[in-house]
Amino acid sequence: MTAASKEFRTAALIGKVASPDVAAALAGSAALLAARGVNVLIESESAMPGTPGTPASYEAIAATADVAIVIGGDGTMLNAARRLSETRVPLVGINLGRLGFMTDIARDAMPAAIDDLLTGKFTVEHRHLLQGEVIRGGNCIHEAVAFNEIVASKGDIGRMIELEVKVDGEFLYVLRADGMIVATPTGSTAYALSANGPILHPAVAGVALVPLCPHALSYRPITISDRSVVELTLLEPHDGAAHFDGQSRVATHAGDTVRIACSPHSVTLLHPPGYSYFAMLREKLHWSATPRH
Amino acid sequence: MTAASKEFRTAALIGKVASPDVAAALAGSAALLAARGVNVLIESESAMPGTPGTPASYEAIAATADVAIVIGGDGTMLNAARRLSETRVPLVGINLGRLGFMTDIARDAMPAAIDDLLTGKFTVEHRHLLQGEVIRGGNCIHEAVAFNEIVASKGDIGRMIELEVKVDGEFLYVLRADGMIVATPTGSTAYALSANGPILHPAVAGVALVPLCPHALSYRPITISDRSVVELTLLEPHDGAAHFDGQSRVATHAGDTVRIACSPHSVTLLHPPGYSYFAMLREKLHWSATPRH
Amino acid sequence: MTAASKEFRTAALIGKVASPDVAAALAGSAALLAARGVNVLIESESAMPGTPGTPASYEAIAATADVAIVIGGDGTMLNAARRLSETRVPLVGINLGRLGFMTDIARDAMPAAIDDLLTGKFTVEHRHLLQGEVIRGGNCIHEAVAFNEIVASKGDIGRMIELEVKVDGEFLYVLRADGMIVATPTGSTAYALSANGPILHPAVAGVALVPLCPHALSYRPITISDRSVVELTLLEPHDGAAHFDGQSRVATHAGDTVRIACSPHSVTLLHPPGYSYFAMLREKLHWSATPRH
Amino acid sequence: MTAASKEFRTAALIGKVASPDVAAALAGSAALLAARGVNVLIESESAMPGTPGTPASYEAIAATADVAIVIGGDGTMLNAARRLSETRVPLVGINLGRLGFMTDIARDAMPAAIDDLLTGKFTVEHRHLLQGEVIRGGNCIHEAVAFNEIVASKGDIGRMIELEVKVDGEFLYVLRADGMIVATPTGSTAYALSANGPILHPAVAGVALVPLCPHALSYRPITISDRSVVELTLLEPHDGAAHFDGQSRVATHAGDTVRIACSPHSVTLLHPPGYSYFAMLREKLHWSATPRH
Repeated sequence: MTAASKEFRTAALIGKVASPDVAAALAGSAALLAARGVNVLIESESAMPGTPGTPASYEAIAATADVAIVIGGDGTMLNAARRLSETRVPLVGINLGRLGFMTDIARDAMPAAIDDLLTGKFTVEHRHLLQGEVIRGGNCIHEAVAFNEIVASKGDIGRMIELEVKVDGEFLYVLRADGMIVATPTGSTAYALSANGPILHPAVAGVALVPLCPHALSYRPITISDRSVVELTLLEPHDGAAHFDGQSRVATHAGDTVRIACSPHSVTLLHPPGYSYFAMLREKLHWSATPRH
Repeated sequence: MTAASKEFRTAALIGKVASPDVAAALAGSAALLAARGVNVLIESESAMPGTPGTPASYEAIAATADVAIVIGGDGTMLNAARRLSETRVPLVGINLGRLGFMTDIARDAMPAAIDDLLTGKFTVEHRHLLQGEVIRGGNCIHEAVAFNEIVASKGDIGRMIELEVKVDGEFLYVLRADGMIVATPTGSTAYALSANGPILHPAVAGVALVPLCPHALSYRPITISDRSVVELTLLEPHDGAAHFDGQSRVATHAGDTVRIACSPHSVTLLHPPGYSYFAMLREKLHWSATPRH
Repeated sequence: MTAASKEFRTAALIGKVASPDVAAALAGSAALLAARGVNVLIESESAMPGTPGTPASYEAIAATADVAIVIGGDGTMLNAARRLSETRVPLVGINLGRLGFMTDIARDAMPAAIDDLLTGKFTVEHRHLLQGEVIRGGNCIHEAVAFNEIVASKGDIGRMIELEVKVDGEFLYVLRADGMIVATPTGSTAYALSANGPILHPAVAGVALVPLCPHALSYRPITISDRSVVELTLLEPHDGAAHFDGQSRVATHAGDTVRIACSPHSVTLLHPPGYSYFAMLREKLHWSATPRH
Repeated sequence: MTAASKEFRTAALIGKVASPDVAAALAGSAALLAARGVNVLIESESAMPGTPGTPASYEAIAATADVAIVIGGDGTMLNAARRLSETRVPLVGINLGRLGFMTDIARDAMPAAIDDLLTGKFTVEHRHLLQGEVIRGGNCIHEAVAFNEIVASKGDIGRMIELEVKVDGEFLYVLRADGMIVATPTGSTAYALSANGPILHPAVAGVALVPLCPHALSYRPITISDRSVVELTLLEPHDGAAHFDGQSRVATHAGDTVRIACSPHSVTLLHPPGYSYFAMLREKLHWSATPRH
């Protein structure tokens, strides 16, 4: 898909807070964009003294930006995606971090990528989000979205917990494990991968249920439709925690239910020409690496 | 979903060929249906001397039956589903075999199930099929559908083969393995499960690529969209074979490509009240069996 | 192997502290043993008011008991085995708990098992233990033995850690994961199993290195000789923890090394006639459960 | 361990038959050895016209060689190891093939390696072998050794088989699968790895039982002592095959038993200075490859 450059009259820059390395990249992109006549907003917490562009809150970005350029690693992208999840602002990711499954543009490729972006050379991808609620005594005590995964797990004590798992109101099983990961296709290469979960291409409308260290031999993960609702109820006598993208966390008690469904909102990612999901798997995960000759 | 019983004026009975055990069950169902005023067809190859009902070819069944009742195991169901794949005749499965992932009605429950069927008490499920072509020198030399999976594998000699794998024309990797399984969600509990593939709920519109004994550590299976086209090309100097549901097979040579896509047709299964996919996983696969107290 | 009953002149009873259920079983066994002329010691912390037998410290048990009968679950057995690890007192396990991989005598079978024990009908099995040291700045700051496993893992914060792994002084790799489990064959059916580790028969003189949720595709566990020394060094900037059988725990900081070797001591288990390790795997773990017909 | 060079007065060269590439390497090594005053034998089938050295049968090599230098890939090494398994002739492997888990000296490193060998700079490693018998109606109809693995599997038809598995005469389970792999630690990085088997360091005195594509969720492989005897009995109505290192094969029928035990003989490998098993895993299998930054 292509789009005319006039769509991007205002670009927001979002970076990892207080990182000098990111500050330089932010300044560089701001200059590039300004030189092209684009109005530049800098997310307020990312802005450091001297950063060019107009500081703006996430609310202001949501209201006025045509695109958000996220500079950092996947953590920064996860945070931006969650903050902008109820908007339609598309995201572009520049990778200064370790892995960058979502921030797919290398730092060196940034100038060319901004050029491509402004001349409409990119592809558009929609990724779904999860929304989770922690329910205690019938009331929702916490609510958050997640781009990668929602995890119901043991707390600090570190003992195995028991979770009753339901899908669309139907009992699946009682899980004895360190926890349960409910992951989007985006999250299938993140923590769920560590727990031996399946890799799901982002075009698959599914959600993976991946037990975390189950003490049993037969808990193979299952991928269900993204129209299903998952409920994870912590059984007596355990305490635990619910985690959203590893970025927010709430303590849970026996009887609490974490209810997870797909969000009505989605994240729009813009990819540079030549982007390939499979190439990313090969390069970042050594996927399919054959023994060396 | 419910449907009025008048929809089932003609029922076809399909059984495993030449099995006395099946013959008795066929006769029993035929009597039950006839007593309810349903016109009964018996698939010609399934009919044994003395079986009540009108012998009919698959073509005749396709043309006139409102429902096909399949009696036997999953092999019988796979065969019937493939033979009727271009029709809209819904299938009901009575299990006389070992496992019965698809033939979900136990033999003892047959009379009640036929009653439920005729009074419209059932749920309807659509399952997708794969269609595969073996291409040699630019020409299609074999074509077949599969309900569970299509496998490109080593032939009789038993040496590892090399396959070049493409999705939608894009190169994924060269696989050194015993073969590659391309499975539907239905097939995800069949042979793909043996090769450590992911379990996909039938409502997930995905196709699993499951390497068969790859000689490497990092070939985790991937699930892709069911709108994608998979191409598996056998590399020099190997010979191999393509398998369709383990029921039909064609020898392949170096340079041959097996091209796999979802079929435009689907299979309609009718399930009795109380059917549960998750219960089937627990009961038939011991899925999620926790250590015993 | 058989042994004359005179060897068991003094038996110690060890139970889960402050459990009324265990108290009844303790009293029952004490009575059975006393009736057979065996001198009965009750581990001091296990003794509740009214329990027959002479209260005794672990030190006294170590000095005078010919056998220790452990009543409870595997947690109780782990604790007893670790407390008595430097002695030669053999252990017999009566299972009142959930799983009982090590406490292999069911509660109902206790009278017969005590009879068998006193008449020399049992088999003897030696199991090895690990010993671990946490080294900080060249000094050992914590030392403990483990019967199942020693784990170096992330701490409470829950972020992935990095560990440098060495075996016999040779660098293996840097692991990015939730942690590393170093398990004995006994522990191979405990937490290591949850992390997809290999099952090792207790007669195998090996130690399994099982990464805990590694964020990579190719970290297959490895089993090494039990004569090897494993060193796990926590890299900057992480904090973590070292766990011994899930029973004792010490906080670790970047730079700390957990050094693990087999203990010179071993645990002696006495099993009743008919004991089978493979049967235990089938019964407790549903090992090898085939799909149901 | 070091050894004086005088031990190697006679060296045998063994190469892949009829490979011009190997012929050149054979000639090169023969010249190097002759120049050092070593008596050179060339295994008769490996010798091509013009190869220097004295052609010799395996029997002659067994009788007179102090060392055998194997040039080719792992297949060549497997064959040589099996042919010389009842002798004490140590083996050195020069890799001209793909992978070379056992042929650990690269072609370029050959001159230096031969120098090291003759000056006693090498380490000695003993690896155990399996020996298998196919028993039909009480008689042994085939007998062979294996360095990597013995496999009882389905035959050409390709249907799943059923095997009754016993260890030391005790029933383990009935396996429904494509087959069973019984592997040495050496074989744990070969075919058993493809079937998701555990990696066993060669110093572990164990044997891995690795089900090949079992149609069940809970057949985790088990490693047992190398003093145990494994029996695999093919159940009605299946035909199958027994494979020894993928090099020899015998058809099996229902009722046949493949009985497997460790061979009383072992293979002695000589490794050059700097050889590391763990480095081999990292280099050849990408073992522990972390996601790229």
